[in-house]
Amino acid sequence: MSILTVGTVAFDSIETPYGKADRIVGGAATYISWAASYFVDDIKLCSVIGDDFPEHELEELRARGVSTEGLQVKKGEKSFFWAGKYHDDMNGRDTLATELNVLADFDPVLPESYKDAEYVMLGNLTPEVQMKVIKQMNKRPKLVVLDTMNFWMDVALDSLLKVIAEVDVLTINDEEARQLSGEHSLVKAARKIRAMGPDYLVIKKGEHGALLFHGENIFFAPALPLEEVFDPTGAGDTFAGGFIGHLAKTDDLSFENMKRAVVYGSMMASCTVEKFGIEKLKNLSTTELDKRMEQFANLTAFDAGVKF
Amino acid sequence: MSILTVGTVAFDSIETPYGKADRIVGGAATYISWAASYFVDDIKLCSVIGDDFPEHELEELRARGVSTEGLQVKKGEKSFFWAGKYHDDMNGRDTLATELNVLADFDPVLPESYKDAEYVMLGNLTPEVQMKVIKQMNKRPKLVVLDTMNFWMDVALDSLLKVIAEVDVLTINDEEARQLSGEHSLVKAARKIRAMGPDYLVIKKGEHGALLFHGENIFFAPALPLEEVFDPTGAGDTFAGGFIGHLAKTDDLSFENMKRAVVYGSMMASCTVEKFGIEKLKNLSTTELDKRMEQFANLTAFDAGVKF
Repeated sequence: MSILTVGTVAFDSIETPYGKADRIVGGAATYISWAASYFVDDIKLCSVIGDDFPEHELEELRARGVSTEGLQVKKGEKSFFWAGKYHDDMNGRDTLATELNVLADFDPVLPESYKDAEYVMLGNLTPEVQMKVIKQMNKRPKLVVLDTMNFWMDVALDSLLKVIAEVDVLTINDEEARQLSGEHSLVKAARKIRAMGPDYLVIKKGEHGALLFHGENIFFAPALPLEEVFDPTGAGDTFAGGFIGHLAKTDDLSFENMKRAVVYGSMMASCTVEKFGIEKLKNLSTTELDKRMEQFANLTAFDAGVKF
Repeated sequence: MSILTVGTVAFDSIETPYGKADRIVGGAATYISWAASYFVDDIKLCSVIGDDFPEHELEELRARGVSTEGLQVKKGEKSFFWAGKYHDDMNGRDTLATELNVLADFDPVLPESYKDAEYVMLGNLTPEVQMKVIKQMNKRPKLVVLDTMNFWMDVALDSLLKVIAEVDVLTINDEEARQLSGEHSLVKAARKIRAMGPDYLVIKKGEHGALLFHGENIFFAPALPLEEVFDPTGAGDTFAGGFIGHLAKTDDLSFENMKRAVVYGSMMASCTVEKFGIEKLKNLSTTELDKRMEQFANLTAFDAGVKF
């Protein structure tokens, strides 16, 4: 199956306790596309860049089956740029700079070849842009997944709620789930948020794993305890790419397969954070991926034994 | 198998966003004994109380198979008292009062009937008292588990390190593991801490579950997402009681069974926090426990599917 994704393609300057990386390639749609490319080879990228973006990075994406037909290149303009510094414990970060550049007036236009994609991944971006993408599809996709963040809850809640009402899966972190629902208990938060539209809610908890809520079912996928987390940037986007990648590859929307997709997403994210930017995500072998998936399976497997 | 436990038997005044409870029965050894009593009926309690402690509470414990022969009752003195208030998010708490009372000069003396216990649970208490208990055993128990906290790392690190060197399992929370090891990565922290003595390390992460480290193996048990957490007091002690309770019941120290013990501990803790103090822990049915254990198993169970 094919995946359409919209999101940023950008430059990031990142500082973590382990080092600095200046103006490296990043952006939600970049991470999503790279992660999903390990599952399917028909990915349609919708985004906007300036003419400062390295052509070879786009060639690498195309070589992985990512179409850039819907990637607008603005002559004489600059790509979106974000700079941030992570705290010592890596759980928080300060934004040092946000230069919207080409993103300021981004108007997504889907090429005809994009409009029948079965799986749609709306990466973190203004809700208006996400909605415009949904509206251009020829028919309702099999699955629409939405990623967003607290910033849009603060500045564009009405538009965000409209998009949330249109999607099948929403992925946000625990603090965002609490903000969106006004509930501290994630069980209660999930119930309220699913009532806003999405059948499935994924709550990402970073180093503490991810929860999947659907009906009365709850599934928990752990994060893999790592020797070092070098750079958490893009972990959520990588999760999204692995999640929808597995679903598009298997074309199976059962709860059992959704659970598996959450683990695949967590597994891909655990790879990304071990190096800066997309460096590790670009260079994964199937042997490494299979081995890591086995680590995830072993991490929580136990045999419950006898009853009380 | 029999379990010897040492720890506080005390009064707590607790305030959470859900309400207040004044001078209710608490203490590490109380929670440990109640939790373990669902697994075995031969528990030896070593602690100290004043003559203000309600006799019927002790009778209830004895009816569950808990010996109070090693529980010292100090005439004219008062039991240990702790008062605390939890923050709105329940993840932090402020201590409002700590009255050591009988605990100030507690000198644990084990009755002869305690000295051959196969399983020993050293509840959170001064490391000196924990060490005195170990030294009085007739022979090396099959398993010694130590629970402690950051307070002892701050004020009695040398004594604490001596006890840590004597035990098989150490249970602490993630911040304590970081403090004790000086490592932020829990994988690295676990390696350093296990080099201090314990073959097994359990890192408790509260609402984010618990990790078990042994050799190169890591196991993760989630916490059950709950509608409400009314009172987190005693969750760690309940975990310890369920953990050693399962091990003593099965008398099996394989890694597979240790994993199961971590889940049983988490499961018991998930019950405790749903009501104030030991109220829920006193009134669990085997049906309820079996059902909750099934919820834990379902929470993380998935079938990994095909390889990449």
